Amino acid sequence: MHLFYTPDIQSDTYKLSEEESKHCVRVLRLTEGEKLFLVDGKGLFCEAVIISAHPKACILQVVDKKYNYGQRDYKLTIAVSPTKNIDRYEWFLEKATEIGIDVVIPLISRYSERKEIKPERLEKVMVSAIKQSIKAFLPVLNPLQTFKETIKRPFTGLRFIAHCNEGEKVLLREVVVKGKDVLILIGPEGDFSNEEVESAMKEGFIPISLGDSRLRTETAALVACHTVNLINQ
Amino acid sequence: MHLFYTPDIQSDTYKLSEEESKHCVRVLRLTEGEKLFLVDGKGLFCEAVIISAHPKACILQVVDKKYNYGQRDYKLTIAVSPTKNIDRYEWFLEKATEIGIDVVIPLISRYSERKEIKPERLEKVMVSAIKQSIKAFLPVLNPLQTFKETIKRPFTGLRFIAHCNEGEKVLLREVVVKGKDVLILIGPEGDFSNEEVESAMKEGFIPISLGDSRLRTETAALVACHTVNLINQ
Repeated sequence: MHLFYTPDIQSDTYKLSEEESKHCVRVLRLTEGEKLFLVDGKGLFCEAVIISAHPKACILQVVDKKYNYGQRDYKLTIAVSPTKNIDRYEWFLEKATEIGIDVVIPLISRYSERKEIKPERLEKVMVSAIKQSIKAFLPVLNPLQTFKETIKRPFTGLRFIAHCNEGEKVLLREVVVKGKDVLILIGPEGDFSNEEVESAMKEGFIPISLGDSRLRTETAALVACHTVNLINQ
Repeated sequence: MHLFYTPDIQSDTYKLSEEESKHCVRVLRLTEGEKLFLVDGKGLFCEAVIISAHPKACILQVVDKKYNYGQRDYKLTIAVSPTKNIDRYEWFLEKATEIGIDVVIPLISRYSERKEIKPERLEKVMVSAIKQSIKAFLPVLNPLQTFKETIKRPFTGLRFIAHCNEGEKVLLREVVVKGKDVLILIGPEGDFSNEEVESAMKEGFIPISLGDSRLRTETAALVACHTVNLINQ
């Protein structure tokens, strides 16, 4: 199945960009009449056929459309501090996109070692992951946010903070509710500070544990993502 | 917490290797009387103090021992085909070790693109992951095995084969039983062939699905690993 990401598709004919046309015609060797698929990242999934296999301007005709393709009945937002080694963050984005996530908030907290990201690069990773895993929704990557902004933002749904400090915690798997929106905060390599955990709790966040293992930031974020998806399976 | 992997520890005093001594004394700047921890990869977890902080031959005295530290009451074996890009396999090994796995079988199946691995390199990844996640058991990395050998090997426990072909399947989360040993087969990028799935079923393997998402090999293997761990939480 050949899937193209076409966020700007608006009518039933579509011209692939020069780069994609080349990929389509020269690399994949597709010709007139052959079928391919388009997603716009906002839930639209189209079946299309090639009506002109020009290697610089390949023209497609949409023959079938599905809206809200693969839409989940809950929204999963994970606010996770960018890792010192950005590869590990990219890896999380790729895997969470494959498994299922709606919004990622890069979170700057007390012990964050990395305080900047390159959103374009991170989006590329997610685009590649939706193409690979055949998804019509591209997760939303929010701009960098401070911890304070994140805990104050309006959110109707379950709100959790994962941390490894002392204190009473519930297992995430015990408190996720099928069909309910979820926001989970995951700290940086140095974890959240006690003050951060307390201030989140004051805002109504529930402290959670992901189990007995000590997990790296990106592993914890993925485990949280998969737990929510599994409960909703 | 400073954790060292010392698979050859046999008495209550232990001499770190030249490389580890240098790391301990020069890099971590630990001195006489300071505490550190040792694991042997077979369940032994020791607390030790430095009695001679020599940068080439650092001597430790074990002061406390725990056997079978963090032992699970089930055994998880995943037989997964090495990925074309070995980085993805290493990533799986790192994450599965953090989350919890006992045995990994590199599986050669019909559509495997990679038919060799470097076990020493893969073991290094796992050693690094147990140190990072504070585990006393090092997962066992089996030698490469063919699909036929793998489905014929004796195994008392639940046996599953994950695949994306047509056919009746159950969700893994519905059939894992808390406390029971599990063996799961995960195919290569091209998936298992229909013949392989059928021959596994003849041997008693149950075909499973990991959900609606189309997952890459290493993501599927990790999702399977985490599902079993979550049910056993």
